[in-house]
Amino acid sequence: MASSRKMVEFFYDIVSPYSWMAFEVLCRYKNVWNIDLKFKPAYLGGVMHGSGNRPPGMVPNKFHYMTKDLERVSGYFGVPLYPPSDVFEAMFEKGTLNAMRFVTAVAEKEKEGDVLVERVSRELWKRIWSTDQDVTQPASLTEAGLKAGLSASELEEILTLSKSQPIKDKLKSVTQEALDYQCFGFPFTVCHVNGKAELFFGSDRFELMAHCIGEKWVGPHPDKPTSKM
Amino acid sequence: MASSRKMVEFFYDIVSPYSWMAFEVLCRYKNVWNIDLKFKPAYLGGVMHGSGNRPPGMVPNKFHYMTKDLERVSGYFGVPLYPPSDVFEAMFEKGTLNAMRFVTAVAEKEKEGDVLVERVSRELWKRIWSTDQDVTQPASLTEAGLKAGLSASELEEILTLSKSQPIKDKLKSVTQEALDYQCFGFPFTVCHVNGKAELFFGSDRFELMAHCIGEKWVGPHPDKPTSKM
Repeated sequence: MASSRKMVEFFYDIVSPYSWMAFEVLCRYKNVWNIDLKFKPAYLGGVMHGSGNRPPGMVPNKFHYMTKDLERVSGYFGVPLYPPSDVFEAMFEKGTLNAMRFVTAVAEKEKEGDVLVERVSRELWKRIWSTDQDVTQPASLTEAGLKAGLSASELEEILTLSKSQPIKDKLKSVTQEALDYQCFGFPFTVCHVNGKAELFFGSDRFELMAHCIGEKWVGPHPDKPTSKM
Repeated sequence: MASSRKMVEFFYDIVSPYSWMAFEVLCRYKNVWNIDLKFKPAYLGGVMHGSGNRPPGMVPNKFHYMTKDLERVSGYFGVPLYPPSDVFEAMFEKGTLNAMRFVTAVAEKEKEGDVLVERVSRELWKRIWSTDQDVTQPASLTEAGLKAGLSASELEEILTLSKSQPIKDKLKSVTQEALDYQCFGFPFTVCHVNGKAELFFGSDRFELMAHCIGEKWVGPHPDKPTSKM
């Protein structure tokens, strides 16, 4: 029954490696769990500013932990994550404002379904968090878009759109939606269960999330659960 | 084979509610997994100071999230957590320095095994994180100790010991051990696997921890896994 499906909103920014982990897991589960998964590309910088939070990596011990932890988690989750050579430059100096406007434009153009948003986001994550490539220049965004299956002409249109005021405003409003849920970082997943919003921060709450939405968690690879259990 | 058992160190402070969650889960698993579980009572204030980290609850959105999350997690983990009426007063104004010196004295007196440390820690957690009772006064610590099965005379000795310089130094040195692992908060679990220290922060990494130490995670209640799966 369509009406029994639960709506799950996934707020993310491709600057966030833990968001990539969670994104891939949700992509694997979206046809396993009885959910409508809605991608919400947003701007992490805006969430940090709006909530008064600061990036965890700014505490040296935490940065050290996260570096090791990401290596371990990417292996366990089966996501080919390799940090960029200069993490601070990639995350904080270059940043992802243009990239997230680009994803927002893809989402706006797609209207129905999230197939292209999913593919484009993945290609952007691969660039920043796997192959140490730029995600700030139009040529970089075009390359990611082509790999995601968009045509050159579609990409030209999307690039122009991504610089428009309505798209800038849209990215701001989705970021504000996250803040309205009292978000303080990404990934941030909102599960709508019996009229209540259940909020999950991070990529390590899937077991609890499954419990909350009445589904089963069988590890990060639902297609081959026996390897885990 | 005793030699194949993995050593797992659990650094905690009873000021930390997520540490209570993780503590109870590890207590349930210590005879299920092939591990030697070693409790490491330490001082979270010293870890935060030494690492330059700041309490997560200082960001209002994060405090709001944690309040809801703790309610959800305590239900799922089956730990009767009810926040004190004044969380900031309990955690930051009153604090747990005396309480953790007391636990350290219990550990020092116990020498072999962690039975009393486990019971006393649990009683202290219950006071601060379940029944909104004081954990700073000698009478409070004595009450917790009596409930944990210690005699009045043993408690008198432990209370005196807890104020001694060697115990103060011991608490500092265990806190420093955590910092030497580049700890930045509690709970912090160190699994010694093939000569390597695998570090886990938080109470939501048990599935990954099990994977790393070659054991099975079957949810927070290993005695009744069918209820989960």
